[in-house]
Amino acid sequence: MSEQLRVGMVGYAFMGAAHSTAWRTVNHAFDLPLSARMTAVSGRSPEGVAAAAAKLGWDEHTTDWRSLIERDDIDLIDICTPGDTHAEIALAALAAGKHVLCEKPLANTVAEAREMADAAAQAATSGVWAMCGFNYRRVPAVALMRQMVAGGRIGTIRHVRAQYLQDWIVDPSFPLVWRLRKELAGSGALGDIGAHIIDMTQFVTGQSIASVSALTETFIKQRPLTAESAGLSAAAADGSGLGDVTVDDAALFLARLDGGAVATYEATRFATGRKNALRVEVNGSLGSLAFDFERQNELEFYDAALPSAEQGFSRILVTEADHPYIAAWWPPGHGIGYEHTFTHEVRDLIEAIAAGQQPTPSFADALQVQLVLDAVSRSAESAQWTTVESALQRA
Amino acid sequence: MSEQLRVGMVGYAFMGAAHSTAWRTVNHAFDLPLSARMTAVSGRSPEGVAAAAAKLGWDEHTTDWRSLIERDDIDLIDICTPGDTHAEIALAALAAGKHVLCEKPLANTVAEAREMADAAAQAATSGVWAMCGFNYRRVPAVALMRQMVAGGRIGTIRHVRAQYLQDWIVDPSFPLVWRLRKELAGSGALGDIGAHIIDMTQFVTGQSIASVSALTETFIKQRPLTAESAGLSAAAADGSGLGDVTVDDAALFLARLDGGAVATYEATRFATGRKNALRVEVNGSLGSLAFDFERQNELEFYDAALPSAEQGFSRILVTEADHPYIAAWWPPGHGIGYEHTFTHEVRDLIEAIAAGQQPTPSFADALQVQLVLDAVSRSAESAQWTTVESALQRA
Amino acid sequence: MSEQLRVGMVGYAFMGAAHSTAWRTVNHAFDLPLSARMTAVSGRSPEGVAAAAAKLGWDEHTTDWRSLIERDDIDLIDICTPGDTHAEIALAALAAGKHVLCEKPLANTVAEAREMADAAAQAATSGVWAMCGFNYRRVPAVALMRQMVAGGRIGTIRHVRAQYLQDWIVDPSFPLVWRLRKELAGSGALGDIGAHIIDMTQFVTGQSIASVSALTETFIKQRPLTAESAGLSAAAADGSGLGDVTVDDAALFLARLDGGAVATYEATRFATGRKNALRVEVNGSLGSLAFDFERQNELEFYDAALPSAEQGFSRILVTEADHPYIAAWWPPGHGIGYEHTFTHEVRDLIEAIAAGQQPTPSFADALQVQLVLDAVSRSAESAQWTTVESALQRA
Amino acid sequence: MSEQLRVGMVGYAFMGAAHSTAWRTVNHAFDLPLSARMTAVSGRSPEGVAAAAAKLGWDEHTTDWRSLIERDDIDLIDICTPGDTHAEIALAALAAGKHVLCEKPLANTVAEAREMADAAAQAATSGVWAMCGFNYRRVPAVALMRQMVAGGRIGTIRHVRAQYLQDWIVDPSFPLVWRLRKELAGSGALGDIGAHIIDMTQFVTGQSIASVSALTETFIKQRPLTAESAGLSAAAADGSGLGDVTVDDAALFLARLDGGAVATYEATRFATGRKNALRVEVNGSLGSLAFDFERQNELEFYDAALPSAEQGFSRILVTEADHPYIAAWWPPGHGIGYEHTFTHEVRDLIEAIAAGQQPTPSFADALQVQLVLDAVSRSAESAQWTTVESALQRA
Repeated sequence: MSEQLRVGMVGYAFMGAAHSTAWRTVNHAFDLPLSARMTAVSGRSPEGVAAAAAKLGWDEHTTDWRSLIERDDIDLIDICTPGDTHAEIALAALAAGKHVLCEKPLANTVAEAREMADAAAQAATSGVWAMCGFNYRRVPAVALMRQMVAGGRIGTIRHVRAQYLQDWIVDPSFPLVWRLRKELAGSGALGDIGAHIIDMTQFVTGQSIASVSALTETFIKQRPLTAESAGLSAAAADGSGLGDVTVDDAALFLARLDGGAVATYEATRFATGRKNALRVEVNGSLGSLAFDFERQNELEFYDAALPSAEQGFSRILVTEADHPYIAAWWPPGHGIGYEHTFTHEVRDLIEAIAAGQQPTPSFADALQVQLVLDAVSRSAESAQWTTVESALQRA
Repeated sequence: MSEQLRVGMVGYAFMGAAHSTAWRTVNHAFDLPLSARMTAVSGRSPEGVAAAAAKLGWDEHTTDWRSLIERDDIDLIDICTPGDTHAEIALAALAAGKHVLCEKPLANTVAEAREMADAAAQAATSGVWAMCGFNYRRVPAVALMRQMVAGGRIGTIRHVRAQYLQDWIVDPSFPLVWRLRKELAGSGALGDIGAHIIDMTQFVTGQSIASVSALTETFIKQRPLTAESAGLSAAAADGSGLGDVTVDDAALFLARLDGGAVATYEATRFATGRKNALRVEVNGSLGSLAFDFERQNELEFYDAALPSAEQGFSRILVTEADHPYIAAWWPPGHGIGYEHTFTHEVRDLIEAIAAGQQPTPSFADALQVQLVLDAVSRSAESAQWTTVESALQRA
Repeated sequence: MSEQLRVGMVGYAFMGAAHSTAWRTVNHAFDLPLSARMTAVSGRSPEGVAAAAAKLGWDEHTTDWRSLIERDDIDLIDICTPGDTHAEIALAALAAGKHVLCEKPLANTVAEAREMADAAAQAATSGVWAMCGFNYRRVPAVALMRQMVAGGRIGTIRHVRAQYLQDWIVDPSFPLVWRLRKELAGSGALGDIGAHIIDMTQFVTGQSIASVSALTETFIKQRPLTAESAGLSAAAADGSGLGDVTVDDAALFLARLDGGAVATYEATRFATGRKNALRVEVNGSLGSLAFDFERQNELEFYDAALPSAEQGFSRILVTEADHPYIAAWWPPGHGIGYEHTFTHEVRDLIEAIAAGQQPTPSFADALQVQLVLDAVSRSAESAQWTTVESALQRA
Repeated sequence: MSEQLRVGMVGYAFMGAAHSTAWRTVNHAFDLPLSARMTAVSGRSPEGVAAAAAKLGWDEHTTDWRSLIERDDIDLIDICTPGDTHAEIALAALAAGKHVLCEKPLANTVAEAREMADAAAQAATSGVWAMCGFNYRRVPAVALMRQMVAGGRIGTIRHVRAQYLQDWIVDPSFPLVWRLRKELAGSGALGDIGAHIIDMTQFVTGQSIASVSALTETFIKQRPLTAESAGLSAAAADGSGLGDVTVDDAALFLARLDGGAVATYEATRFATGRKNALRVEVNGSLGSLAFDFERQNELEFYDAALPSAEQGFSRILVTEADHPYIAAWWPPGHGIGYEHTFTHEVRDLIEAIAAGQQPTPSFADALQVQLVLDAVSRSAESAQWTTVESALQRA
């Protein structure tokens, strides 16, 4: 029987549910050197966390996340809370020698992210590992895309075209939830979904974003307060029942990548009809690749080396046993879903921990994404082309 | 300057307009040994044919189609009338030494079709040529499909899946037009659109349909009489203002092809939302090809010889200069439309006439389609598997 | 805490893995009156079943399926074995008062299926329930399709167009596995995948198949024997290392449904490039619906009641909270996969058991599918249109 | 019989061929108050223009474009030459009282475009009309898109996403043709294809681009000289056989529109596999519309007012008689092609001239596009957000 990797999870909402599915599933799908144990979950509401533990399958629950870190029978802290709390929890966990899986974006500020990356680098020297949860890297079609780019199938990359389009707040009567408040969420569409396409395109191309020119927009400036948001001092109602939206609804930017490609990026919550359209297209000198998460089991590939009369974008159904991760699942054409990206994520994390190797994306990788987010924000404010700060630079 | 091919066209409705476009256009698009001259058009209504001649670009017009055949300054008779008149006109034209282009289906009965094919065979011995207008063979994507099958790109053919789906009479208040009367149209969806998929699949695969099991259905048995149809004695109104639909709304059949493939065919005017969905898919031992006329500039190709992880149906945009017919038109990606199929048809016809070669599809090819239509009708009536009669068999 | 539903599963291969995922997941996704407990699994190989129990999450394992039925602490028998064993197991389980979930097809013969349906009807009188595993009914898009048809959104149904296309045995060197032997599998593509489109179309339309005209084909008559199949006396090797394929590679049929629709059906393992293309299109007097499992999170809908200029097939992303089953999963656009169909299946089964109601599809429903399969087989042999026997008829 | 509109065309290459098709076809497709007569074509090469006149259907030909303007029997000058010659020809034609149709972009510089717009405004006072050839406005799907936006079907516009992707110079061995030299072409992808998406998005949204942030890139800096380009002094060969590419291969920009929308634009000749992918998506508060010229007969529409469970992007086949321009052509589903956009263009031009009304896009509209192109170029050079100069501003 394999050894256990005992997990304590902080937070149990959307990401908590997704991660729980992954921890519950991973050893049933993959043969791994460690067996995940869902030891305990923490959350602020006693009733909420108790119900979540029962529903999601955690052995124990607590309202005190610090108690998870203090326990000897927990090996890894899985952070699924809003971004403003990531740094404190991750730093404490790493200091206590716990491995850490932290949801993206790594933090709400570069300063926090840098501190976390430093701590992770330090911990790594004693075999304690930290990973950031850019789960979309583990969509099989995206992993295949990376393999094909790395294998030279599309040659020198010229263009990157990245969009993450959603529409869940198009209606002006949608309320002022925490994701629309800067002090909690850090930013709006930019950090929430823009971070994913930044990470994914850098992962797929092997290039880093070097400079950006950005604009951000908040189409709906005020929204109805909720019971939750009404209590936020910063959302200070003026009696109208409305509070200020303090994050971007949409963020658009141009970029130059350090390998010579040029790129457009767009993250928005106002693309009516687009539900989770995370789209990346890469054009190279020898071919192109295109992906849309709304059709997550497919990858489009254009091979310019084929006979001219037979060239065309092919729809690869990424469900073959020789495609990344797929051998663990079902026969060709049967298709997997969103939660599998998290199962693949913890699978790779378990493999790395067992092998004593750095899991990816590391906190350093995630800091780099944070530096791009920061450059985008600064560019949008200054209306200037802005260079992405190096992860190695210091204030 | 090239010599002329002087054309007399009979009929000026839908097909007449399409053929006129082709004759007007063909020498502007292609360099050809003969120059088409639109000498005269005939039609039953004096006003109608005069207006059509002016609109469609014919030099002269007449109400007497026989006069076209009698003229020395006409080389080719183009027959665009309903199917019940094809035989009489074609036989007269061939007897007079005129080349003939006849719209499909060749005739309304096998007997007529056989007589026409015999006459065409006889005429061919003196260099007078006859061709049947299965225009969809000349969609570039379909021509490419044929090239690829003939070139062995998909290996041994196992399956044919053919559909021609329309929806223009779904509404029960749609009137009783001539196409819904057996004495004029011969059959309904079967001969009108089913004939196209029979011809196309035999063309693409190089195999002939050997036997069929069919059903036909008329969903709406009576429809409102029009001014035109009210006059038809056969539609004999009973005072209800309704007349009987005497053709099939839909025809479905299974088939075995003589090369070993098995097939499904479906022709219907009741596929709500499908406007002109002429679809053919062919699965072979080494790959597959799929076409849908609603996206006529595309061909889907699956190449089972590619590396497993890269296989997928590719969308070939059939607009490259090395694709059939395309060099005459626009740059890649610019797309052509329905009428181009007729321009390609008369282009190939002119080339064949100038070369003294049999144009295809010949009347013999069209007779073979008629024999399949006949087998389908007989199968639907008898509810028996029915062998397609050989074109060489005699009553 | 909810009461338990204690499950004993027979068989642990492909379907066993899928069902295990469902039992493991269902209470984490849905709030249900009963909590599934994975009590024990049985299988013929001691090592195999032990490994499967560990991997799939069963508490205990055995090589004797009868022992599962004899245990008092098991409430439900889940049958995931090849079709030739279904009847014996299901009859024993029902006789012992165990609920039964049986994979499709219900049996290999009508006689067995009828006996099972009779036993299930008898058991139901004492609150013991049987269900057959036509899991594709529980794809959210298919469930939505049924809702829309039942709600009259497409009016009177005219056409059904059903295909289940796979390609896993196109290569002649693919070996003679059990699914290619009639004595084990009952039939080939017909029962394996054709059964799904028979069930699905009857489910979606609410109509039953009344009569059929069919053909079946075995393209590759002999295949390499495997260690497993070499041992089968019936596959009697002749020294060539090859054994006979005794089932159909493909089955095609036309059908008339009892509500007036006409239909084409095609099930094949030779559609090169089509991996799991379970496709159903239904055309009605007011609109159409189309589904392809290769894009399982989508449903196409054509609404003929919209303004003419705005009509078109819409791609409904079936991932909204008000779509069937989806509220249990992820936000819009995030997508689910193949195994979710099984989770939905056992969810509905648990609900039905707890409510003391007949789960669907019942064994009677599955018998009706078996009668269609039988009519198809008989039609293919006799080359005659064949009436589907009524489930109520007796020999 | 209708009066004639006698046309003299300058230039006979790609655009000349497209315009010739339009003039030849327009009166056959549409009932119009004026009948186009193809009086004469001019070109620099005596042999070339003679051959073109014969092939394209012009009555006469000349090597002197000025002679066309001097003739009394020519009513309209159609300018199909490279951009550096537009101003001189158009100004001369307008001064001589000839109507003008000028290909896009209107000119190579703002100064020229402004002079042309001034001249056109002056000419309009005497009933002499000028139009610029942004033909893609006349794709039926694009015209429908404009109708739907103007009719409020998608509400307030939030996002515009525009791409014009080609790949014809991806290969570094592709030679240095005139379109790659700034002195002839003015710019590269920007003016050639970027101009189209600028015009189309402004047309569709009814909003103007107010400010931009741009980057341009030339991936391949030198290319093989051709016989033609070797003679250009400015391409001054250094003995390498290579000359400098002096225009952009790709131009990307962000924009703010004056109605509050934010936008991304991308024009490139390096999107491998994209042949003529002119794509525009517009997201509004009530719905979205999306178009891709590679599927020019389709328009995607998302209507957020439909019942939630039935919402989805619908694929409108823009081939119905009540769609723009279509009644002149074929039945639903039959599809038209690239050249039809030009036929629609001259149809609208003839209608406007006959009615004594300003045809659109006017030279003033085209000047506005030129001002955007200029702002994009200046932004790319300065790396600054740049305001689009008003058409009314003076230096």
